[in-house]
Amino acid sequence: MTERIYLDWNATAPLRPAARAAMLAALDQLGNPSSVHAEGRAARHLVETAREQVAALVGAEAANVVFTSGGTEANGLALGPAIERPGERQPRDRLLVSAIEHPSVASGGRFAREKIEEIPVTSQGIVDLSALETRLRELAAAGQRLLVSIMHANNETGVLQPVAAAAAMVHASGGLLHVDAVQTAGRIPCDIRALGADLLTISGHKLGGPQGVGALIRSSQELHLADPLIKGGGQERGGRAGTENVAAIAGFGAAAGAAAAALEADGAPVRALRERLEGGLIAAAANTVIFGSGAERLPNTTLFALPGLKAETVLMALDLDGIAASSGSACSSGKVTASRVVKAMGVAPDLGAGAVRLSLGRDTTETEIDRFISAWRKVVSRLSRGVNRGLAA
Amino acid sequence: MTERIYLDWNATAPLRPAARAAMLAALDQLGNPSSVHAEGRAARHLVETAREQVAALVGAEAANVVFTSGGTEANGLALGPAIERPGERQPRDRLLVSAIEHPSVASGGRFAREKIEEIPVTSQGIVDLSALETRLRELAAAGQRLLVSIMHANNETGVLQPVAAAAAMVHASGGLLHVDAVQTAGRIPCDIRALGADLLTISGHKLGGPQGVGALIRSSQELHLADPLIKGGGQERGGRAGTENVAAIAGFGAAAGAAAAALEADGAPVRALRERLEGGLIAAAANTVIFGSGAERLPNTTLFALPGLKAETVLMALDLDGIAASSGSACSSGKVTASRVVKAMGVAPDLGAGAVRLSLGRDTTETEIDRFISAWRKVVSRLSRGVNRGLAA
Repeated sequence: MTERIYLDWNATAPLRPAARAAMLAALDQLGNPSSVHAEGRAARHLVETAREQVAALVGAEAANVVFTSGGTEANGLALGPAIERPGERQPRDRLLVSAIEHPSVASGGRFAREKIEEIPVTSQGIVDLSALETRLRELAAAGQRLLVSIMHANNETGVLQPVAAAAAMVHASGGLLHVDAVQTAGRIPCDIRALGADLLTISGHKLGGPQGVGALIRSSQELHLADPLIKGGGQERGGRAGTENVAAIAGFGAAAGAAAAALEADGAPVRALRERLEGGLIAAAANTVIFGSGAERLPNTTLFALPGLKAETVLMALDLDGIAASSGSACSSGKVTASRVVKAMGVAPDLGAGAVRLSLGRDTTETEIDRFISAWRKVVSRLSRGVNRGLAA
Repeated sequence: MTERIYLDWNATAPLRPAARAAMLAALDQLGNPSSVHAEGRAARHLVETAREQVAALVGAEAANVVFTSGGTEANGLALGPAIERPGERQPRDRLLVSAIEHPSVASGGRFAREKIEEIPVTSQGIVDLSALETRLRELAAAGQRLLVSIMHANNETGVLQPVAAAAAMVHASGGLLHVDAVQTAGRIPCDIRALGADLLTISGHKLGGPQGVGALIRSSQELHLADPLIKGGGQERGGRAGTENVAAIAGFGAAAGAAAAALEADGAPVRALRERLEGGLIAAAANTVIFGSGAERLPNTTLFALPGLKAETVLMALDLDGIAASSGSACSSGKVTASRVVKAMGVAPDLGAGAVRLSLGRDTTETEIDRFISAWRKVVSRLSRGVNRGLAA
């Protein structure tokens, strides 16, 4: 049997060997990090070492890292009205999110539904900065205290967002900026200060750590998350109660360290493979649409559609051919639904229903890309018989 | 060097070999359970197998298990006003909790501070059923929709709570009962129907699974948690968003299976060891106070104090002698603070400040207990020189 080809790294990435080793060592370390005895202190040491590693990946201080059970929880923790700054203890009045945020941000966390506003994106899937600026000015003039959430790169298209420019606008309006960097941390440079983020979400399993762990990172100790999402004990400096997931945190730290070390080495080869892949897609069918291709994107991600082909059918055909791909985000219950992201970009529903995401990673090889392209040509030829549209040879 | 003796199983228990093996296998299974491809379906299969195992441990249906990042999160999910029953969609008006609940329950979850009431406990650390009944009647007469949370066994004293009797009262008042069974599931019989619980919290790492995973279990699909704590994707049938922690869930499932299989075999030996231990404590100092000793307790737990000795000093001395013990719950940030639980039992602050918890487990041996008692005699003799009280020989 041929090896399968995994092209769904944005859904979850393979565990890095360093992360696996750190987890195994941690699983053998009995102890609750809150316990004062030797076992507890050893578990605590693993957590604090990982905190340094995760902080270093995004240029933050370790004391500003709050470990969570993942990116979704970190987003939920960030998106609460009770974020305090020195001399400013009133709750945030309103949350602005871009129209292409992950569902865990789009849900608005703990803001009431009527306090949440969407900022549109361009046809290339980039947040519309002039719309943002206009709305920020209006709301600031009305005395509203704002929280804004804009992702670093979109999970479906890979399109990078103008986060630093948005940060300048948000700060000029007296607001705070949260950035969901789940898809960028460990893949491209992601520095909390360079981004201008006040709060940054990252996830373990997207960067080669385990599932079930993530972090919300503050730019400054002066920002106080006054209302933890998960309440009880005083863990994580009061920011997140519950016994720490020591093994996952240790694996996350090791993965962050490994990702930081390989950041430059990994980027260029993946980008070259993505170019090879997209060349192959266009060669197979000249009318293939690659979403956001005019924008700066994550080097590993391609979202495309071929008019007339349904994503669900394509994914099943590819899966049978040994290829794991996705129709966009993998966050609902196994159902392939129309993508909110391409809809926000103004893509026609028929074309949007065909959007297929291929996301590559550090282990992806040229041979795999070529095998994919060969499989894709067969899929196109087989499926297009039924749709009777003009496809390139 | 002598092997250390771990007597802090209520803080965290060693990972069961079956759980470790299941985790390793799951870590090697690449895939997001929400993905539709073969890798995703394989990850989904691991999660659903674990769901069956966890459900079976507490006599529930698999469809009613919501996996969380641990007991604390499960308690936070349970304690929200938006629990709906058929024909009853109004929010719960009030939350009643016993005075000895874990901090994650005592914090009241998403109920406003003024909507939370404490029900007192007796000097043996048992929830005061007559106080509960009186208050339930008053509030039901006032038309209040109630949620009540009472733990199955207290984490510090081990005292079992009259949950089934409380459930009958709660249901007679039209209320719902949540039971935090973190310390009992996998150790003593813990059946959601026998307890009369509407919602049940259990934790992975207390029963030999990994840290970072737990579950909230409903007695019926008719109970709807209308406001998830962690929002976003549709995972866990809409009850809890975020990519599932597949490895931890698989480990939890395997641990639940192993615990269920060993439930009867493990109980009696642990109880005998605890009796040997308490005999040794009394023999070392006849004025030793064992909290809740007149009540039915978990077989593995002893909370005791020797007048004049401070827990912090005792724990340090024991730790140096190679023994891991605790001063009660291990849920704050490494600080030994006075126990809320013994305070609620009416114990004098001076005596309460000396409360030391020893909690045993399936791997605890008679030799370890005897080594502990021998070490304890030395600690008592050394420390009591400074306190000048009448201690037995």
